[in-house]
Amino acid sequence: MQICEIINVGTELLLGEILNTNAQFLCRELAAMGISVQRVNTVGDNPHRLREDFLHALSRSDIVLLTGGLGPTQDDLTKEVVAEALTLPLEEDAKQMQCIKDFFAVRGLPFSQNNRKQAMVPHGCTVLYNENGTAPGIYIETGEKVIVLLPGPPHELQHMFAHALAPLLQQRGEGVIVSHHLRTMGIGEGRMAELCNDFLDSTNPTVAPYAKDGEAYLRVSAAASTKSQAEDMCDCTIKKLQKVLGNYAYSIDKPLERVVLELLHAQNKTLAIAESCTGGGICKQLTDLPGASRVFGWGVVTYADEAKQNLLNVSRETISSVGAVSAECAQEMARGMLARSGADVALAVTGMASPADDTEKPAGLIFLHATDGTQHKSLKLETGRSDRAYNRSVATKQALDLVRQLLMI
Amino acid sequence: MQICEIINVGTELLLGEILNTNAQFLCRELAAMGISVQRVNTVGDNPHRLREDFLHALSRSDIVLLTGGLGPTQDDLTKEVVAEALTLPLEEDAKQMQCIKDFFAVRGLPFSQNNRKQAMVPHGCTVLYNENGTAPGIYIETGEKVIVLLPGPPHELQHMFAHALAPLLQQRGEGVIVSHHLRTMGIGEGRMAELCNDFLDSTNPTVAPYAKDGEAYLRVSAAASTKSQAEDMCDCTIKKLQKVLGNYAYSIDKPLERVVLELLHAQNKTLAIAESCTGGGICKQLTDLPGASRVFGWGVVTYADEAKQNLLNVSRETISSVGAVSAECAQEMARGMLARSGADVALAVTGMASPADDTEKPAGLIFLHATDGTQHKSLKLETGRSDRAYNRSVATKQALDLVRQLLMI
Repeated sequence: MQICEIINVGTELLLGEILNTNAQFLCRELAAMGISVQRVNTVGDNPHRLREDFLHALSRSDIVLLTGGLGPTQDDLTKEVVAEALTLPLEEDAKQMQCIKDFFAVRGLPFSQNNRKQAMVPHGCTVLYNENGTAPGIYIETGEKVIVLLPGPPHELQHMFAHALAPLLQQRGEGVIVSHHLRTMGIGEGRMAELCNDFLDSTNPTVAPYAKDGEAYLRVSAAASTKSQAEDMCDCTIKKLQKVLGNYAYSIDKPLERVVLELLHAQNKTLAIAESCTGGGICKQLTDLPGASRVFGWGVVTYADEAKQNLLNVSRETISSVGAVSAECAQEMARGMLARSGADVALAVTGMASPADDTEKPAGLIFLHATDGTQHKSLKLETGRSDRAYNRSVATKQALDLVRQLLMI
Repeated sequence: MQICEIINVGTELLLGEILNTNAQFLCRELAAMGISVQRVNTVGDNPHRLREDFLHALSRSDIVLLTGGLGPTQDDLTKEVVAEALTLPLEEDAKQMQCIKDFFAVRGLPFSQNNRKQAMVPHGCTVLYNENGTAPGIYIETGEKVIVLLPGPPHELQHMFAHALAPLLQQRGEGVIVSHHLRTMGIGEGRMAELCNDFLDSTNPTVAPYAKDGEAYLRVSAAASTKSQAEDMCDCTIKKLQKVLGNYAYSIDKPLERVVLELLHAQNKTLAIAESCTGGGICKQLTDLPGASRVFGWGVVTYADEAKQNLLNVSRETISSVGAVSAECAQEMARGMLARSGADVALAVTGMASPADDTEKPAGLIFLHATDGTQHKSLKLETGRSDRAYNRSVATKQALDLVRQLLMI
């Protein structure tokens, strides 16, 4: 098995200004390729310490993967330190230089001489061209060892890993690990684990329960010598788990918003959304997906009571009697949205994201309503928490699940 | 200045199953105490590699802080490895044993012999009792050096750090480090660094450029013997940088949406938002902040052309002649939103988040318009990228900045 060591470069990491999500991403991806990450190191923008750690890692690993420090400024020095340590001269890469110039031209930004530094690459390397930024990745083979440099911004790193680096590394891995997530809604992590208790001790595939923001899921991981073998093993276990969990298990891997989008698309229906306390978060989550416009055309964020009345025809009486945070208001919002938009299904959410002075209604009290004009699904949440981000996130997920339930009637 | 090295122990970290939030927490807290973290290492539950990394860290640091591997199971071995490496015998700590027994009794759980292991501590250490779990922390002074072991679960680690460890370390720190971020919009990282070039070599405060999703910022860090001295030093440098960067520099530390919210609040104005390609993301970002309802009451997500016409009164002619992705449409959306909502300021965004088959307009072409009825600010973005998440994120930031610019006229 190939041994890999990761070095994340950046003083901002050592100051705690940035959460190191790159390490987790890379560890997970490399494990899935059957590459064993034995150490992850973070070092600042200091050439002496970086050089020392790089040479140390190289002495005991097959693959050394460095991230960050490829930017245009003087304290970006990963490439320079690695090239010097390997005694490889830096040369200008013509294609990379053109990429950088194009990058600036398209944006109407002036080309800075600092950016010329980003077109310099170590002699004999393979350049991993960056489709999302100006720093190229670098892939160097020296004898039996591989050295990789990736840019620090996560979206650049992730795209480059998947499209340029993974195919190169794949040839070096032995065996594969495949993981899938069986996702559930409407059941807690504890109850889910209880139902699946018989599976939690198995060793291959392994089954492990996790929870995040009101959603619980099981990770199923199988190790085998080929991908299709590992997939078959996962598949077999997942089928058994689905039997146990029934309708709680809403997908394998797919996020909830995609399940909803695909259900709508399959049924040739459109959805309109009226939000109050989630403030646009449900619309955003759905439209994060390409192709959302096929099923979604209308949304409103009626934060103010007048907006609820004007845009959704919520009655003044409802607001003055039971208030905007009520089952009645959620229902009127959904009805109003359905009528106004002409969509097939309407979803509405109203509630308290944080505590407020001007009401006795508690934070975390949230009403949801989904309707197609005939069928109705409604839900009252009482999270008991005053954490605004948590309440909004839970409401967003539960709202999407309500649409899923309506579509499955 | 005291040099610290952190070692996070846990195979789950190397498999990417867990995001290492402990590293960020500790780095931030230690920096604030004037302790310089020079390296963060992650190593698995392997006694040989852990021993090697521990001794290496000890040879070059004043403080070595290890996290994780203090649990009751066999693969929890941090304490055993460290005690052996320092040739300190493990002894049962009577108070800790009682704590563990109480912990189980209170919860009605059976006491496991495995847990006896957690009452064993290195001879001569200071025990950091754990109020949230069964694993005690360990504080060892050997000559000039300090070795600290903390439990891995973040809530246990954070509580123990604040209440038990910080007071012990405070005595060893010399001075404090204060950092602030001068945030900019409308200028790239390269150009920003060029303008501030004279500052980038200074050593105290240090000034370092960063970039993230279309926003560039400078981190200014000062070390001094007191917090107020360090704050003054930062302040002085930041004032000079602000002069150089002018209106590009929109805040110290504060995120853009908060700057916009505060400007609106200070001017006693409300904002209404009409979104197409950002799909609710701008409304969501603003309403992530508590108190958003004071300045924001109305939003619409007019993804479909009919929604733009019905809700915002965009003319059929505009859509059929120049299309929904046009400067004209953005302007009509903003005007329509202003009229409909009665808000003081309206913001509109329309554009291509991803490539589409049914138009020749390229992904990343986005039009923004902000108006208060008299003044107008508009912007055309051409990111040249087909990355949907990037385009939406950049458009959201630029849209908020457009409102900021309008409010500062």
